[in-house]
Amino acid sequence: MTTEGYNYLIPLETLMVSGIQIGTRIKTGDMEPYIYRVRPDGLFIIDTRKTDERIKVAAKFIASFPPQSVVAVSFRLYGQQPVNKFCEVTGVISFAGRLSPGTFTNPLAPSYIEPQLVIVSDPASDEQAVGEAAKVGIPVVALCDTDNTFKNVDLIIPTNNKGRKALAMICWLLARQVLRERQVIPADGELSIPVDDFETKLTEEREER
Amino acid sequence: MTTEGYNYLIPLETLMVSGIQIGTRIKTGDMEPYIYRVRPDGLFIIDTRKTDERIKVAAKFIASFPPQSVVAVSFRLYGQQPVNKFCEVTGVISFAGRLSPGTFTNPLAPSYIEPQLVIVSDPASDEQAVGEAAKVGIPVVALCDTDNTFKNVDLIIPTNNKGRKALAMICWLLARQVLRERQVIPADGELSIPVDDFETKLTEEREER
Repeated sequence: MTTEGYNYLIPLETLMVSGIQIGTRIKTGDMEPYIYRVRPDGLFIIDTRKTDERIKVAAKFIASFPPQSVVAVSFRLYGQQPVNKFCEVTGVISFAGRLSPGTFTNPLAPSYIEPQLVIVSDPASDEQAVGEAAKVGIPVVALCDTDNTFKNVDLIIPTNNKGRKALAMICWLLARQVLRERQVIPADGELSIPVDDFETKLTEEREER
Repeated sequence: MTTEGYNYLIPLETLMVSGIQIGTRIKTGDMEPYIYRVRPDGLFIIDTRKTDERIKVAAKFIASFPPQSVVAVSFRLYGQQPVNKFCEVTGVISFAGRLSPGTFTNPLAPSYIEPQLVIVSDPASDEQAVGEAAKVGIPVVALCDTDNTFKNVDLIIPTNNKGRKALAMICWLLARQVLRERQVIPADGELSIPVDDFETKLTEEREER
């Protein structure tokens, strides 16, 4: 898909239907350069081209690490299925759910692990993971919404990091791009798993906190 | 060298003698998280640990690209010798000096090139390179001083990006780390070229603009 000479990873319409570009009513100074406009209802809209560009950059970076040296974290409920699927596809270690204190910093903690890279679905809700990674010098890649700040984050992917469909889409695109970068699939290859499988399904028992 | 359990790439004293931590009297919001303190004379001081961490992260990222697909840019005079040496050691293409308009954007420009990654010594003085890279979606790694903003920059290395010795040190450390990441030299291997060779020498004819 081409818009003014730029090649998107998927057709822009498909990307936008997932709501990846829909931010919050809060805009941080850090996120300013990634925001395209504000809607009349006050929601800040993310520049989808920047999202697309950063997926490519982040995938290249992630692919330069051995899969089992990378950890993906999501405390947020809607991020857990996408992150688990991302990990299933890419071989990265999943820490979806609560991260036990000391996981990256305390060799005596039962969950202790020494990753070389940490990916978080939200630097605010995954504050503990980001803080622990910073303490021991592990680089952090973070999905960042319009209300996030970049403290201790090394590389950001600007995106709606709260919606079910948006989280599924970003994790699916990132997983596909990581496999392309690793040359597990061709440069235009597809995942065998559809984006729909990355989505957290709503049931009566399971609602966003 | 270890300070509170963190392993620096070189002894902290050596790093600090180069003045890598000495910023400017201006502090941008973007650079806030990378600043350690303000000196009584008003100079903002950069957190050297963050500099060290980002050299490691950036080197890993740079090493994931083929050398000849990467371009290093420095318009600033004091950055030219360090950037040229960096390129000599790593095989990256040097664009030290003025960048002709259209170098990354206009296929008809005589200097036209399609790099996959651009490294700049200062996003302010190398504004043209950063802007052109953004236009065509090339990721940018930038040395950033306390007075820089991060617009269109993907990965920053916080450092004094103005001093002769600081620029030599950062480019030398980055070159060494890129070769280590590529496994051209061992993980603790050294460059055959001393940091001194990366430094712009002052002569009567040659003074900073």
